[in-house]
Amino acid sequence: MRRIAVDELRSRLPSWRPGVVLDEVLAFLAASEEIAPPERVAVFDNDGTLWCEKPEIFQAEFFLHELRAAAAADPALAERPEYRALLDHDQAALAGFGLPRLAVALAELCAGLTAEEFSARSASFLLQRQHPTLGRPFGRAVYQPMLELLDALRVQRFATFIVSGGGTEFVRAISEQLYGVAPEGVVGTLIEYEYVTRDGAPALRRTGRISGDANEGPAKVLNIQQHLGRRPVFAAGNSAGDRDMIEWAIAVPGPSLGILIDHDDDKREFAYESVAATFATTEHIVDVGRREGWTVVSMRDDWTTIFPQLQ
Amino acid sequence: MRRIAVDELRSRLPSWRPGVVLDEVLAFLAASEEIAPPERVAVFDNDGTLWCEKPEIFQAEFFLHELRAAAAADPALAERPEYRALLDHDQAALAGFGLPRLAVALAELCAGLTAEEFSARSASFLLQRQHPTLGRPFGRAVYQPMLELLDALRVQRFATFIVSGGGTEFVRAISEQLYGVAPEGVVGTLIEYEYVTRDGAPALRRTGRISGDANEGPAKVLNIQQHLGRRPVFAAGNSAGDRDMIEWAIAVPGPSLGILIDHDDDKREFAYESVAATFATTEHIVDVGRREGWTVVSMRDDWTTIFPQLQ
Repeated sequence: MRRIAVDELRSRLPSWRPGVVLDEVLAFLAASEEIAPPERVAVFDNDGTLWCEKPEIFQAEFFLHELRAAAAADPALAERPEYRALLDHDQAALAGFGLPRLAVALAELCAGLTAEEFSARSASFLLQRQHPTLGRPFGRAVYQPMLELLDALRVQRFATFIVSGGGTEFVRAISEQLYGVAPEGVVGTLIEYEYVTRDGAPALRRTGRISGDANEGPAKVLNIQQHLGRRPVFAAGNSAGDRDMIEWAIAVPGPSLGILIDHDDDKREFAYESVAATFATTEHIVDVGRREGWTVVSMRDDWTTIFPQLQ
Repeated sequence: MRRIAVDELRSRLPSWRPGVVLDEVLAFLAASEEIAPPERVAVFDNDGTLWCEKPEIFQAEFFLHELRAAAAADPALAERPEYRALLDHDQAALAGFGLPRLAVALAELCAGLTAEEFSARSASFLLQRQHPTLGRPFGRAVYQPMLELLDALRVQRFATFIVSGGGTEFVRAISEQLYGVAPEGVVGTLIEYEYVTRDGAPALRRTGRISGDANEGPAKVLNIQQHLGRRPVFAAGNSAGDRDMIEWAIAVPGPSLGILIDHDDDKREFAYESVAATFATTEHIVDVGRREGWTVVSMRDDWTTIFPQLQ
């Protein structure tokens, strides 16, 4: 078996500041050589773990972008309460609706699009629209240290997957380009399709229905098994919706690592307490992580760089 | 772009007899270099396409094997009509029940097992139990020419997936070892899990419920999109349950190939008309394939070898 030097692994993580957190990551990467390669499985949450989720989750921004265009063409659309609240930036109403109801509204806004059309619109939005404060397109508001960690895991022959509460097809539109994760490696909240004939050819069209539950909390564990058929030994997240997935990964007998991103850097990103929109929680997830022995990453202290340099 | 010589591709398909069928396969493999690599996606049915499905589909044989052990321990089990018919080899009753009902009975027989336990039992059965007539373990009753075709597609940088009407977890147990397809590349009929605590640790246990529809017919197209998020340009199957998937693959504008395996070799394998257990059909699928321009493979005429040499 090939053994890699810790220094070589360290050289792949230049945006991680030396310290306890980097040492824990390196110790896991080195120890992973004891794990049989088919069991080297790493899962990453996306919103707030691989890319930024402020001021709004990016899928909500995409929704708003699509909604403005649709409402300009058909003003009656704007009368629907969820759409009205989005167009008016009515934060109280939006918080009241919650992510699941907004997700249904998004699904219904895009119903009738083919898979290819939805993917093209998502990719175009993420790669071209500017984030409101970060001076870069939404799709470039990804965390450089996490890109390096994906790379280091692959050097150690891990299969890397994204397990997101967001829409599977939204993330798939750019997962290969941004993260090197193929479409089939994205596990998220799924839309139902219908198989129809359009202009004499078969086509898959989006319906307005969400398939199954939103991919948060225990659903992440169930969907990892159903979709990937593998048990992770590494999981990274940032919110209460990732807790079950992290606990599942680190309960294996051999080497494992649970990573929790703490958004504590209001200068370079945003400082906030991560909560999953669909999960009521009374305890700060950072406190849970510390108590349970996860590796809690301070964005302020543990990362020298937050975002990739723009080309 | 690297261009590969047709002779090099031909050398990877030694079990395919020279003729029209091999020429069509080679022409597609060569033409696939015009396809953008992310769109080089190939899907294969499993029962009757990658491995044998006679005298019974292998999952039914596995079911029977598990059932005999369970009934020996608990004779009351044998009173359930589906189980009784299986133990008595009551073909009329089995045909009357049909695959979906038998699949539910199988699901319920294995309810309570963890994902790992079910996988271990499936792999053990497939790798160790002898096929009743072919003189080899069930898991070695795979078609050598199709293994070569999987390999040739990968040489051309295709992503290769299995899209089976059978149980996802049953196929996943051996998909990497037999076909080089990772667990997440298997799309089949899914079982529901429950996430529980067992002996103080989190565990995923199988329920007795099938998740969604059996993966046959149009469901194969829908599940390819939901599970893989990619559109195939190559599809191989052998029954009416594969028709939609093949039509979907070959309706793309660029190069594509639809393969239909005709089981016409009663000397080396079995001669029969393939029908999907869940699909009523009035037309022989081979006639459909010829009419629609698929590449219809005669096992008798187009394959020099059926099964791999045993080590």
